[in-house]
Amino acid sequence: LSAEVSDTVLRQAADFRDRALEDSDAYRLVERLAVEVGPRFAGTEGDRNAVAWAVETMRAIGFDTVRTQSVRVPRWERGTLEARVVTPYPQPLVALALGGSVGTPESGITAPVVRVETLADLEELPESDVAGRIVFIDSMTRRSRDATGYVETRPSRSQGPAAASRKGAVAAVVRSVGTSTSRLAHTGGTYFPKDVTPIPSAALSPADADMLATQVRTGETVQLHLKMSSRSLPDAVSANVVGEIRGTRAADEIVLLGAHLDSWDVGTGAVDDGTGVAIVLEAARLIISSRQRPERTIRVVLFANEEFGLTGARAYAEAAAAEEARHVLGMESDLGGGRVWRLDSGVGESGLDTVAVIAGLTASVGAPAGNNKASGGADLKYLREAGMPILAPRHDASRYFDVHHTIADTLDKVNAFELRQSVAVFLTAAWVAANTTTDFGRFPDARRETP
Amino acid sequence: LSAEVSDTVLRQAADFRDRALEDSDAYRLVERLAVEVGPRFAGTEGDRNAVAWAVETMRAIGFDTVRTQSVRVPRWERGTLEARVVTPYPQPLVALALGGSVGTPESGITAPVVRVETLADLEELPESDVAGRIVFIDSMTRRSRDATGYVETRPSRSQGPAAASRKGAVAAVVRSVGTSTSRLAHTGGTYFPKDVTPIPSAALSPADADMLATQVRTGETVQLHLKMSSRSLPDAVSANVVGEIRGTRAADEIVLLGAHLDSWDVGTGAVDDGTGVAIVLEAARLIISSRQRPERTIRVVLFANEEFGLTGARAYAEAAAAEEARHVLGMESDLGGGRVWRLDSGVGESGLDTVAVIAGLTASVGAPAGNNKASGGADLKYLREAGMPILAPRHDASRYFDVHHTIADTLDKVNAFELRQSVAVFLTAAWVAANTTTDFGRFPDARRETP
Repeated sequence: LSAEVSDTVLRQAADFRDRALEDSDAYRLVERLAVEVGPRFAGTEGDRNAVAWAVETMRAIGFDTVRTQSVRVPRWERGTLEARVVTPYPQPLVALALGGSVGTPESGITAPVVRVETLADLEELPESDVAGRIVFIDSMTRRSRDATGYVETRPSRSQGPAAASRKGAVAAVVRSVGTSTSRLAHTGGTYFPKDVTPIPSAALSPADADMLATQVRTGETVQLHLKMSSRSLPDAVSANVVGEIRGTRAADEIVLLGAHLDSWDVGTGAVDDGTGVAIVLEAARLIISSRQRPERTIRVVLFANEEFGLTGARAYAEAAAAEEARHVLGMESDLGGGRVWRLDSGVGESGLDTVAVIAGLTASVGAPAGNNKASGGADLKYLREAGMPILAPRHDASRYFDVHHTIADTLDKVNAFELRQSVAVFLTAAWVAANTTTDFGRFPDARRETP
Repeated sequence: LSAEVSDTVLRQAADFRDRALEDSDAYRLVERLAVEVGPRFAGTEGDRNAVAWAVETMRAIGFDTVRTQSVRVPRWERGTLEARVVTPYPQPLVALALGGSVGTPESGITAPVVRVETLADLEELPESDVAGRIVFIDSMTRRSRDATGYVETRPSRSQGPAAASRKGAVAAVVRSVGTSTSRLAHTGGTYFPKDVTPIPSAALSPADADMLATQVRTGETVQLHLKMSSRSLPDAVSANVVGEIRGTRAADEIVLLGAHLDSWDVGTGAVDDGTGVAIVLEAARLIISSRQRPERTIRVVLFANEEFGLTGARAYAEAAAAEEARHVLGMESDLGGGRVWRLDSGVGESGLDTVAVIAGLTASVGAPAGNNKASGGADLKYLREAGMPILAPRHDASRYFDVHHTIADTLDKVNAFELRQSVAVFLTAAWVAANTTTDFGRFPDARRETP
């Protein structure tokens, strides 16, 4: 074991781990957030309620300081949506507007469909096959423990509508980027660069994508009707909520625990990212209630607006760059509340021994050492670009994309026992990292963002 | 073995069974009905399309006669629904109007909630606890292979709102009678006797019922807002669709295979009752394409409007009472396309030996003999009340109530392999029953209707 982690700290960390596994109650926090606040899309009343809830909850937990950091967020309103097949076989479709979509004219749009299986196939179509049509991108998302299935198909949603617009499409529908086997559509952000005309864009439930594909296979002209009132509004103000347990020896060295407070508008955000919020708050609560104090500062950040453009993460990183304090290590929970099955990292050479010590402690609860190729979550993007090293507990995401970004992101999907294990891993890691002199170095290099 | 079933018929039936298991393609029929017709609630355009589809499909299969039988059906329109918690924690609710519900005033209804766990608990509440409130019946449906979980809680939906109205409630919401673990509400019929004032009535998704119950447990006054535009319209005309394979020896002795053609408006009716329609049509198709002819007449009846009052079944039974022909045995498939795990019956003493012969043949595909206490399906209600004996292949309903009466009743829930096994059982039974002189007697006595 590394001399940089004392026997006392090892014993304390093991005690915290075991206590978290037996006694932690992150479930109660998720329940409160899901029931008392519910949907909290950036800039809405729910978002403001969530900020108030977080401040009050952090104060009750007893952080040394609790503060909000103002964040300007874009405002988008879902409005109403009606989608149906007009020919050859009329059927209503279950669909959700994609975040960032514009609306249709009030009378709607009726146009023939052109179906592609991938974004790459769309890129190869001549404009004459696309212009005036509704592009249907029918990429099927693979179930995976590590979210790679989602990472593969996400561009069909985030970039597909813009690619369709570039070729003259009048609208775009994409097979939901998700693994739901119910008839649920999965929303999520789609982005139109400045030089691209935004078009109405929606996700179809997997069952409806199947049905539409079957109609296309008949060889008949398939026409869709889409009517949407989605629109953008002037920017609003939201906030990151930041709570600190001040370090005794090196208060200006920060171990960051992050999650995002906002959610999509359609579910209650119990899973995305209620579980993450609860895990990091509960880890901090167990430290505070133990009356032991870390040597470095442990800072919990509940980020604003992860879902629709990472504006909270950007505002936080900009402020952090101007701070005296230095972020020595960052961790984020934003992949649901499934068991942590591996502990990856993205640290410099000087940090590897202490990461191994942490993984030695978490291996006994099912989270053994992984690799040093992790890049952390979305809200750490700007901090790691600035060099912050990261530790990445991997939640099991096998079932996460069944509910992610759907109306079914509700409390019944949260497993209290699995949350305890996640709290044990985050707490163990945070305690060791905050009670060592280890320099975790710099984030190795620019890597692709993980969800 | 009974002398009433010849060795030749036994061999033919075993051949049909094996061929159905290997080669039958009921899936293709479900797919066509779900994709080409989709939702077909009684009296709608979808319903008329379904009747046309069934006539065309039966003609293509080659029935000796195909006819429609006009049925007057009640018309109910779902309209729009908005449901939300107003206090203490505002949240939107996922809900579906119950069939037969009236609408609210245009401004909606806002009222405090009174929660009961069962219909029996509601009956015991004093009127003063109910008057002016919205009754919330929170009965949880048990998953079961044989549908008994559904049978237990169904009255909370079908009779609960009327019971609430009798005590002065202004509206009723019920936990969905179903086992979905997604955020889906289950619709279904609710009935107001003539002396009871109809009130707005809706089903909450299980996740929303959980959330509402949690809010009630805070002890604060929980107020709901409901806005619905559901309404009844003048009766419309639909049709039973009837196809016959004429018997060679005893054409006026009928073996009936039934399923219902209509569906609720919210899904595509792939499972309820697309699977049943496909199973009975495919069984008939295999007989017709074999060029063998039954001694008794095999009649396939696709009933109109099972879902909202059994008016097709009633019209059929009334016409049957006036016919020369006699129904010697009836079977129905209306519990999804799951494997048949047992063969029950409701026949007279004289029929028991031949039922045992049939079960001897189906046991090898997983459907052994059961008991003689079955009552058959809903569409056989009036025929069995008139004495028609029945055979009841039991579909495995473990997952049926996950999608029954929801938007998620779609093609992806249908398992082609399981359908083949169901076709094998129905076909085997029909062939033996139609090629024996067995008198199956009369349906033993009045029994409670099964779903």
